[in-house]
Order: sequence, then structure tokens, then C-alpha cells
Amino acid sequence: MIDVCLLGTGGVMPLPGRWLSSALIRYNGGMILIDCGEGTQIPIKIAGWGFKAIDAILFTHYHGDHIAGLPGLLLTIGNAGRVEPLTLMGPPGIRKVVEGLTVIAPELPYKLQLIELPDKEEAETHLNGLIIKSIPVDHTVTCLGYCLILKRQGKFDIERASKLNIPVWYYKQLQKGYEVKVGSQVIKPDMVLGPERRGLKICYCTDTRPTYELIDFVREADLFICEGMYVNNEEKEKAVKKKHMTFTEAAEVARKAKVKAMWLTHYSPSLTEPGKYIKEASEIFPNTEAGTDLLMKTLKFTPE
Amino acid sequence: MIDVCLLGTGGVMPLPGRWLSSALIRYNGGMILIDCGEGTQIPIKIAGWGFKAIDAILFTHYHGDHIAGLPGLLLTIGNAGRVEPLTLMGPPGIRKVVEGLTVIAPELPYKLQLIELPDKEEAETHLNGLIIKSIPVDHTVTCLGYCLILKRQGKFDIERASKLNIPVWYYKQLQKGYEVKVGSQVIKPDMVLGPERRGLKICYCTDTRPTYELIDFVREADLFICEGMYVNNEEKEKAVKKKHMTFTEAAEVARKAKVKAMWLTHYSPSLTEPGKYIKEASEIFPNTEAGTDLLMKTLKFTPE
Repeated sequence: MIDVCLLGTGGVMPLPGRWLSSALIRYNGGMILIDCGEGTQIPIKIAGWGFKAIDAILFTHYHGDHIAGLPGLLLTIGNAGRVEPLTLMGPPGIRKVVEGLTVIAPELPYKLQLIELPDKEEAETHLNGLIIKSIPVDHTVTCLGYCLILKRQGKFDIERASKLNIPVWYYKQLQKGYEVKVGSQVIKPDMVLGPERRGLKICYCTDTRPTYELIDFVREADLFICEGMYVNNEEKEKAVKKKHMTFTEAAEVARKAKVKAMWLTHYSPSLTEPGKYIKEASEIFPNTEAGTDLLMKTLKFTPE
Repeated sequence: MIDVCLLGTGGVMPLPGRWLSSALIRYNGGMILIDCGEGTQIPIKIAGWGFKAIDAILFTHYHGDHIAGLPGLLLTIGNAGRVEPLTLMGPPGIRKVVEGLTVIAPELPYKLQLIELPDKEEAETHLNGLIIKSIPVDHTVTCLGYCLILKRQGKFDIERASKLNIPVWYYKQLQKGYEVKVGSQVIKPDMVLGPERRGLKICYCTDTRPTYELIDFVREADLFICEGMYVNNEEKEKAVKKKHMTFTEAAEVARKAKVKAMWLTHYSPSLTEPGKYIKEASEIFPNTEAGTDLLMKTLKFTPE
């Protein structure tokens, strides 16, 4: 199970009534934040999931509207009592940016672990049981798209476990993927688990043109959070020039990638009522929602 | 005439419904911002005075809640079309802090002029006809209080000007303080102007204990914007320890300094309804107002 909260949906600058684009993802008691523009700590406060359990912040890129809220958030996480290290991930240059911004947060009560992700190829990192994949996208500066994947192991075969005479108190360990020793026999998880089942995949991509690689990257995601800076083909020239996407283009990516659902985000400040134009996308990809600040959803494993 | 807008009234962190403490002062077509915590650009947007005419930002100190909004605001001022230099003033260390924070705003369309103010004594700088005075106050780190003073020259003596045979088209120049030449005679402004009249004085002091120097500094101000982090003497211990003031202490400063009016600001996040406790201050200094976000006032010269 993964909870997702779209904290904000704006691009360029925070507006009265619209926070900057970012998303908070909660799973297994931990949280991951994607991007942190100026003010992001306020919708986090409103969401009510707390600050202390934020284990990592992933940055798509280092334009101000995606990172300027970092020092304030780090201070607030410290005030919330965190002492465990916090991971910050992003494209190359993360050290310089974080060192610069934290000049006003010099004494945090926890350590920052910086991970520089590659800007030329896909990468995979692991965090508390979650797989974090990144991919370089097509923007005016180096920018990454992210997929968070929660794997789901095979079904526990009680009949088989019973035949192997495994005491029930070992079931949990085997379910969690640990081997156990029963008498002189070593029982490996795959001896009692069926084939790996479909897990959960959530993707977050802003500040990019549509690309073939992006379609492959987000393929069959349960939720695809995607930028829609502009609305339709009339604004395509602007989108091409500024390396953004229109609603129409985002919907094409979602359709081709066969994702289950898409939320649009990262609206231009001039796009005051994005919901009005949802048809531009939903005619191409029906399960599109015009994201709104603090939109939440729980993704659950497919029942079997 | 000076317009004042209290943009926010919070301390420590921005909250849903409460921006961080800062004030925008408008005069002669220009604007000065005092402090710029995370999110400050949003109440500036709401105030509706624009971004382009912000000529200077004064910082009381470099705690995150007073400066973290700088890079985002600088970008927005750039987007608003400013090309004229922007002045940033604050206690020693301003260069390091500004260089750090602007790592995410590397290509502004205007220059930044940094002025480092002294941390041991009062100082006076001049900006577009306004006098900016600073004074070190008593906080956990070096912190400055500010007074902005708009002088008012003496009344123009038409009778005297007429006796001196000065053509009327020179009156404006003389009123503005320039000397003019009439035939072979040089007319100096003081030849036609009465004694200097009472101008306007607005003071802004947060993050300090009350001090004698502070009382002198804000003496007879038309408006004294002062921190009231806590309410009354029951919380004094906390105020002493964290180097802040209670409502009661702020009111004592206002009373002793004989200011005309006081606005309280910089409330602790735990102080959710400061207005409820206004009596703690107004019993000592009657013309106290519990500042609220976006509270505005126009200060006018005293009529004669």
C-alpha cells in the first residue's frame, strides 16, 4: 500500500491558493518527498502526515520552484525531532546546491546523505524496501523523472509449508524473505512462496518534453503524475520552446504507456482553472485527473 | 506619506494561514522590504503593490524564518521585469548568505548591491530620499532593528520668495532642496523655507530582548512594529532564554519610547490567537494592535 499526496500543482512561482509542484509518498511508515519549492512545508503541515518520517527528498532539478523550500523544510524537520539521517537525491550538482541553501540551516540535528544520480542514463536506488528509479528527461537543464516501485512477493503457500513441517512461527520470516532453519534443514523463502506478484508503481515527471524513453519508463504505472504546463496544441510552440508539455501531450504519453491513472500538475501561473480544460487530455487518455493541491490517493495491491 | 503593509506575523516557520514576519514599505514610488522568510512573495502578490519597485531588502538577521524566501523572491522580481540594481542590507555575513542562497538563482536580470551593516553600533544609510537607521539588538545571533525616516523640509515661504523676486517656476526646485540662480543672485533653499518639520518614522524590531538602546532608537516613532513572541510574564522565562519579548515587554518599550502606535508581530507558532491577549499590552500602551497578515496603514505628515 502506498499513500500519495500531491502537495502542490504550480510551476514557476508559488501563488495565493496554489503551492508549487511536489508530491509526498508514504509507505511502510516512511515518507519520500519529491521536489520542495518555496512554501512546500505548508501543504505538508496541512496534509497532516508529519515531518519527522520524511526519509528522503528527491529533486527533479534545481530550478528555484523545485528546491527553494529546502532550507526551511530541513529546519522544520529538525524541529519535529528527527535525528535519523535524511537522504537527498538529485541530478549532478546536488552538493553545491545543498551546501549553498543550507548556509541558513547550519546546525541540523541530523545528517544529510547526498546521492548524485546520473544525468545520462537510468539509475536504480533502494530505500527502505522501495525501488527508486530515475531517468534523464528533456528539459532546459538536466532534469530527472522518477518511478517508485513497491515490489510484492509471491503468495505464501501454507499447504507446502505444512508439508515441509515448518512451525507456524517461522511463516512471517519466510514471508518477509528471510530463510529459516528447521532442525538441520534450511528453508528458503522461494520454497514456500509463489511467483512474484504485481506490485505498485508510481511515477512523477515534470519539466520535460514527451520522449520515447519516458513512455517506456512509466509503462503500466498505477499512477503517473505528469506535468501539463500548458493546455493544447495552440500552446505547443511555447511548450516546445520552454521544454514543457501540454495536457494533450501528457495524455499521449499516458495512453501509449498504458498507465492506470494520470494526474496532471505543474500548471503555468497563467492557467488559473486547469480543471476546465481536462477534456483536452481525457479525450485521449480517459483516466486523467487535473491534479489539485492536496489531492490524495491510496494505491493498493491488486486483490487476487 | 508612507504606506506600510505587514506581510506576515509568524515566527519560526510559515503556517497554514500565517506568513512569516516581514513588512513592505512604499514611499515615493519605491518599496523597501524588511525580512523575507519562506513564502513572503505570496503575501506580496496578495498585497498587490507589485514586485518590480522593490528597491531594497533589509534583513534583521539570517535565521531561516527571516531570509529563506530570498531566492524565490529574487526570481519573481526578475520575472516582473526589474533590471535596476536591488540593494540587500543586513548584519555582517550577508555576502556568504546571499551567495549561498542564490546558487539556485544564478542568472538574475539585475545586479545585487550588498551592504553590510555594523553589528556593534548604530548606522545610517540613505536610499531614494529615505534614511535607514540600524541598531544591533539583543538576540541569540547578531540581529538588527531598523528605523525608516522620511524627512520633511520646512514650509515654503511664498511671501519671502515673492520679495526676493523669484519667478514661480523655480518654486518647485527650491521646495525640493535645490538652489537656483535668479539673474546674478544664487537663491538657497533655506532662504525661502521655514524650519524642518516633523517627518515620519517607522520602526521594525523583532528577535530581541527589550533594551535601553532600543527605547532610544524607536523614540516617538509614528509606527513601531515590534515582536511579541509570547504573551505575558508567565512566559517571560522562555522569552529571556530564547531572546525574545512578551506582549507586556513590547508594550513597556512602546510606552517608554512614547511611540504613536505599535503593531505586534512575530508570534510563536503555538500562539494561535494573538488578538485574544491584546489587553496584556494595551493596558500598558493603549495604542497597540495585534498585527495580522496583510494589515495596512498609510502614515501621513501631521497637518499644520
